[in-house]
Formats: sequence, structure tokens, C-alpha cells
Amino acid sequence: MPDYRRRTAREAMSVRLDVNGLMGEAIGAAGVGREEVDALAPRVSEVGRVLKARRSAGELPFYELPYEKDAVARVRALAAEVRGECDTLVVLGIGGSALGTRAIISALGPTAPRIIVADHVDPWSFGAVLDGLDLKRTTFNVISKSGETIETMAQFLIVRDLLLRSLGAVDYTKRVIITTDADQGALRQIVYDEGFRDLALPAGLSGRFSVLSSVGLLPAAVAGIKIDEMLAGAAWIDVRCQEADIWKNPGHLLGALLYLADTRHQQNILVMMPYSDRLTGFAAWFAQLWAESLAKAETLDGYPAFVGQTPLVAVGAKGQHSLLQLLMEGPVDKVVGMLRVEDHGRELPIASAYADLDSLGYLGGTGLGALLNRQQRATELSLLKGQRPVFTLALPQLNAFTLGQLFYLFEVAVVFAGGLYRVDPFNQPGIEVSKRLTYALMGRKGFDEARAEVDALLAAKRPEYIV
Amino acid sequence: MPDYRRRTAREAMSVRLDVNGLMGEAIGAAGVGREEVDALAPRVSEVGRVLKARRSAGELPFYELPYEKDAVARVRALAAEVRGECDTLVVLGIGGSALGTRAIISALGPTAPRIIVADHVDPWSFGAVLDGLDLKRTTFNVISKSGETIETMAQFLIVRDLLLRSLGAVDYTKRVIITTDADQGALRQIVYDEGFRDLALPAGLSGRFSVLSSVGLLPAAVAGIKIDEMLAGAAWIDVRCQEADIWKNPGHLLGALLYLADTRHQQNILVMMPYSDRLTGFAAWFAQLWAESLAKAETLDGYPAFVGQTPLVAVGAKGQHSLLQLLMEGPVDKVVGMLRVEDHGRELPIASAYADLDSLGYLGGTGLGALLNRQQRATELSLLKGQRPVFTLALPQLNAFTLGQLFYLFEVAVVFAGGLYRVDPFNQPGIEVSKRLTYALMGRKGFDEARAEVDALLAAKRPEYIV
Repeated sequence: MPDYRRRTAREAMSVRLDVNGLMGEAIGAAGVGREEVDALAPRVSEVGRVLKARRSAGELPFYELPYEKDAVARVRALAAEVRGECDTLVVLGIGGSALGTRAIISALGPTAPRIIVADHVDPWSFGAVLDGLDLKRTTFNVISKSGETIETMAQFLIVRDLLLRSLGAVDYTKRVIITTDADQGALRQIVYDEGFRDLALPAGLSGRFSVLSSVGLLPAAVAGIKIDEMLAGAAWIDVRCQEADIWKNPGHLLGALLYLADTRHQQNILVMMPYSDRLTGFAAWFAQLWAESLAKAETLDGYPAFVGQTPLVAVGAKGQHSLLQLLMEGPVDKVVGMLRVEDHGRELPIASAYADLDSLGYLGGTGLGALLNRQQRATELSLLKGQRPVFTLALPQLNAFTLGQLFYLFEVAVVFAGGLYRVDPFNQPGIEVSKRLTYALMGRKGFDEARAEVDALLAAKRPEYIV
Repeated sequence: MPDYRRRTAREAMSVRLDVNGLMGEAIGAAGVGREEVDALAPRVSEVGRVLKARRSAGELPFYELPYEKDAVARVRALAAEVRGECDTLVVLGIGGSALGTRAIISALGPTAPRIIVADHVDPWSFGAVLDGLDLKRTTFNVISKSGETIETMAQFLIVRDLLLRSLGAVDYTKRVIITTDADQGALRQIVYDEGFRDLALPAGLSGRFSVLSSVGLLPAAVAGIKIDEMLAGAAWIDVRCQEADIWKNPGHLLGALLYLADTRHQQNILVMMPYSDRLTGFAAWFAQLWAESLAKAETLDGYPAFVGQTPLVAVGAKGQHSLLQLLMEGPVDKVVGMLRVEDHGRELPIASAYADLDSLGYLGGTGLGALLNRQQRATELSLLKGQRPVFTLALPQLNAFTLGQLFYLFEVAVVFAGGLYRVDPFNQPGIEVSKRLTYALMGRKGFDEARAEVDALLAAKRPEYIV
């Protein structure tokens, strides 16, 4: 076990970003030209300067999450309590309140206590979760920054009723922990009224940047995951991403190259392709981060934008059997980002057999993890050969320290890209319409106007277009 | 339980396609104009004629899968044997040999015997599957059309060794069923040599069109799923898709509108968004079908193509908390396809509480399934309102009959779209390079030249682009 306090041990466990396959030298016109990066230098400096100033002014709390000692101490204390009182922690949350925790557990689990991230809004799947629980040995962590997220509130009401009926009013309160805004919202009110244990979220922290806050840290700590190593990994990347030379700054380099790929080379799709099933959850976390942060109708100075690359998850090697044909022969409208784990930490040896059959004999004596990594390399090189944009991020191992690096690296990259696109990476105004119309359909008080809109939209449908 | 032999019962269980949100009347310039469809009429007729002729000539076997009585009888007989001898059926297959079965089981399961689709090429996840098995009560269905799929062969060698060591050579043979080409390939050779039970795949049937062949039917029948209803659903859509008037033919209409959206309106991304967790597997099946079938470097007559819409899966309502901002405010480069289940067949009531809190009180007295369907409608209408392309496919219920309709509908749609793009929807030449380079890296005999290519590509990487 390396000692991550020592710089050389950290160096050996540092993720490595290989952008050869994004550059014109390797893939011709589909690649970013070195001169395009040079031409962007003034913007790169400006965005770097602005972000630094905003960070210093305390406006960008996600940057500081690796260093919040008090919040971490509070998480640790609460996690120690919870570990003693349950076998299962169920997270009731959705989007930014769920995806980070799922990424952590899918990468570093299975754990005891087990963690279930229940972001289901479907009576079958949420019902199956509830059916499988021993309520006396289960703790629920209800997470909603606003304290009124529709899906999470619905789940909370269902669970609350179940607990009240099974355990009674006194024990019910002990089975719920609420993570919400420090001052506002319905959940905060309920904490005051009913006396739940709670965690407060920092003001101005957007859900998709909250994995290293108590949102992700409490479930991770309950699961027994080394949250200090995860935070150390984030801090390690933070240092690397303060490098002024963009070619030595992995976060800014990635943000800038992807921005150029999208805006100068019409590569409007970004495929995140981990070659490790344990990184499936991470890829889903990344997809939200990239999609919600960059897609904006307006620039910061109020001009129309309608920008944003579309993230798409494909898990290698099985994703090759679904998407590779498209990656190789479809339009050159994509960048492929591969995640590679050098040492999987487990191997399944492939026994030798059928030495006389050419199409099987060659497999014997290797292992499934070795095969997986060679498929990653072969597919990366196929894309290079076909002059298709591809980058690779290699993790020496998959552990809390490297996972912390991944989270922070992509957060830095997306915020930097947001600066280049001139948009606000922290808001999501586009989801409000759907919320309003949902409230209208649910009959929430004060949404009569939205209800009239719904009726008008439905009435405008032409029956001849329904078959 | 409706009687699906009766036309009125089938009519009531028929899926409905609503394309209002794809048309210019509803969403302006982002929509397909009625005149664009009219202008396409000659091509529509020609493609319809060619497909009909090729089907009659027996060149397109997927069309006939709902009617293959002998193959179904063989599947039934084998499934009856297997049901008596195991608690778990593990499918060893990948891509087209896995995704259809996962779609079936995820939609209609859980089942007994349970079905595990093990398309993992990762020592952690495949190891976890193997660790959890009682080998004496497990049957393995090894599926590979070519009989030499790298990942499936590796899994087979691992499982074979495990079975031989645990059960010995005699019982080992009884625990494996092989589904492969009728005449060719290494697996066919092994069936002959070792006497496994086997199923033969029809010549010319591409993996991604094989869900209604023995590839998907054997696991489904072992699971106790009503495969006759699934096939009846497919046959029902087959009839509907023989309608000459494109406005009454759901498969051709969908294929044509998506083709026009992509080629005339630069909507190169197709988001498949089921509002039912049980349709997650279906969406992944669809993604392979759409990606591999349309993305081609060459047209049928040899011209450069590089076409193909990119499919992307987002499961509602949780996908709204990841992708909706992008759908509403990103570039208008997407079509969103929603799947809606009218009657989920299970409901979780939401208990009334906190009537004094506006942001919670409105939820009480409804149910989670009702909420989910209203979110689908609200999001569909938000897209309409924002003039963003959206279509909805509504299933009265999710059962074997409606699932069979979905499979066949999208197969017909993609083959029809392929005709409009003038590409071959049944091949996938683009994946060969990666296979060749994988063989080279694995040291397979006869791949020295590919090995030299690998070395050259690796040597061309510039160290300054690795950070």
C-alpha cells in the first residue's frame, strides 16, 4: 500500500492524460492544430485568471472541497454512528445527489454496510428496493439541496409512511438523515420540526459538483471507503491544475482541446468509454457534469449560445459490440475519451485449451483483465489509424486516490471549458419548464397558468400524426 | 388477461407512435416539413419495393422470425429440459448475443430460473458472476454466431476450466448449450467433437437482428416468458408495417422521419428515453441496432457515406436530472424518442403528509407511477414548447406482446432508414481493424503484420502530448 503523503508514491499513482489522438499531427484535419491552441492563448490566460480570482473570492466552493476539515469531521462522526446502527444505507436522491455516490460505490464497492443509491422513479424498481430491506437495520439518507426535488420528495413520503407504520414515530426519526441547504427549503423546515440528524450543504454548491461534499462523503464514509485518500487525490490534481503552462495542466488542456474539437471541428459528441465495469458509475456521473454544465442558451453576457457537447457513455469492451462501427465509419462528429486501468487488482486466468483451433488457442495463458486492456489499446489505435479523435486517461490502479483525481480533473476541465464557451457552468435554467408543467399536471397550487399551457399544447396535436 | 388471438384485444394492446413533435407544424424549422416527406415519396416507394422483393427472395431472414414454427418448437423442447435442471441460466455472449436477452429479462423479469446475461469482459464483474453460482444448478448458454468472438471465447475457456475442475468431464458437457452457426466456426467444431446440446442460427442473420431467433428465445423460454406472445407482437407490427401509405405505417414513417431529421436538419443524435426502468435494457438493445446498422463508410453502390445518427440512452425521469438542460438549451442537434407505459401494472402510493408545505403537499394521494407518467408528458411538452424534436411511443402495458412489437418496429424502421441512406444495415465492417489489432496484441498466429502496425502507431506518439 503506497503512502500517499509521500510525493513519489503519489507520482506513481497519478493519472496520465494522453491527448496524442486529439492532435492534428496524429489524425490530420479532424485533430486540433497546435496553432489553434496557440491562437487560443489569450483566452486561456484570461479564463485562468478569472477562475483564480473567483476562487480567491470564495465564489467557487467546489474548488475547496478537498480541504474542508470541519465538514469532513462532521461526516466522519455521523458515519461512525450510522455504521453501528445499520447494514444498509439507502440514498434517496437524484441527479447530482445520486450519481457521485453511485460512481464511488460502483468503483470501490461492494461494501459493508451496503449502499443503495435509489434514484428510481418507477414503482417496479423502487418497490423492489423497498421489498428487499430490513427496515430495522436500514438508514435512509434523503438528499436534496433545494429541499423540494419532486422525485426525492415523493420517495421520502413513501418511505416515511412505511417507516411510521413499521417502526412508529420515535424510531422513524432515527432511521432518516437529511442532507439539504443550511437555511432554506422544505427539508430544512422538516429537520427543525421533527429533529432529524442532518448535514448542511455549502451555499452556491451546484449538485453536479457536490460529490466531494457531504453528499458523496457520508455514504462513502458509512461504506468504509477511505475518504481522506479520495480528497487527497482531488488535492493532488488541484496542484497539477494550477500549472500556468497549459501543456502541463491536465484539466485546462482537456477543457481547451474539447472546446476546440467541438467549436472548430464540429465534434459535438463526446463518448466516455471506460475499460472497467467498475467505472460505469463514474461515466454516468461525468455525463451529467458535461451535459448540464456546458449546454446553455445564453452566454454570460446575454448573447444566444445554444452550445454544449453531448456526452455518451459506452463501456468497453462490450461497448465495442454496440458502438464501434459508428465510431469507425459514422460521421467524424465525435471525440472518444477512454479510461484505462493499468492494474485491475484482480485477474481471471484464461485456461489453455483447443491449442489446435487457431481462433481459440491464442487466448490460453492470458487473463480477462489483460485481454480487456489490450482491447482498449487496440481500439484506441484503430481510431488513431482511422484519423478519429481519441484521448486516453490511464489510472495506475482504481482506488480512492485515483478516483478522487478523476472527479476533480473533470470538474476543473468542465469549468475551464465553460469559461472558453463564455457560459455559466453552475446553473441549469433549462429544466424549469418541465418542472412547472409537472407541477401543473400534479395539480400543485398556483400552477393554473401552466395547466392552461399543457392543455393548449395537447390540443394542438394533430391526430393524423399519431399512428 | 386479453386474448391476443382476437383482433380487438390486439388493437387495445397496440403501441401508438405520436410524431407530432417531429413535424414542422409543431416545432417550426427544426421539424420535418410535410413537403419534405412528400418529396421523398419516390424513394419511399422504391425502398419499400426493394425490401419486399428481397424479403420474398428469402434474403432478409429477420422479417420471418415471428413465423419460424420449427425453430420455436426446438427452443421450447430444449427450454423444458433446461428448466428442470437448473436454477440459473448464464448467457455467455456479447453485443447482439446479449443485448436482446437483457432487454427481455429487464422488461419482463425477474424470473425463475433466473437469467444472468454475462457480457462482462472485466475480471471484477465476471468474477462476481462466477463467485455467486451453484455450478451444479447452473446452465451456460454460449452464444456466438461466428464461433470465435474474442470475449465470449475467453469466457467460455474460463467457465470450461471451472466446470471441468468442479464437476468432471461428463457432467461438464451437460452444463453447456451452444448457440452458433449451423455449419461453420470453432464452436460448431466443438459441438461436433464434444457432443454439446446446440441451437443453430439461420444463415445471414445479423446478431443485432437476432433477438427473436433462438438467441433471445431460448433464455426467454427458460425464464418462463411467453415467447408466443412476443412473436405475436412482432407479427402484429409486421402487418401494420406492410401498409403502403407511409402515414399509416409506423415502421416506415419512423425510419423516414428520422432519416430526414438527420440528413436535412443536422440532428445527428437520437436520444432514446424510456420512462420505465424496465425498458433500460430495451434502450441499450436499440442503441446497438441504430448505431451499427446505419453508420457506414460506404453506400451500397460504393460511394463514400460516413453517415449514421448516434443513439444515446437516457432513462426518465432520472435522465432529466442529467440531460434535460442539454436537451432544452444545447444545440438543436437531437431528436428525443420517448417510451411511455400507460399502465405500469404496479403502483406505489404516495402518502399524504405535510399538507401545510406547498412543495410537498401536492404529492400526497398520487403514486410514483402516476408521477413518472406526468413527468414524461411534461418533458415531452417542454420540448414541443421549446421547438425541439420529440416523438413518443406509448405502450398500453409492458408485456411480452408489446415488447415483441417494440423489437420488430425498430428493426423495420432501421432497415427502412438504411434503404433511404443507401447503406447495408446488416454488416459491420468497421470493427475489423480493432479485432485485428487485438489479435496482434494477444499474439495470435498470423498477425505479425498487424503487430508491426501497432508498434508503429505507438512509436508515433509524442511524449509532450502526455501529461
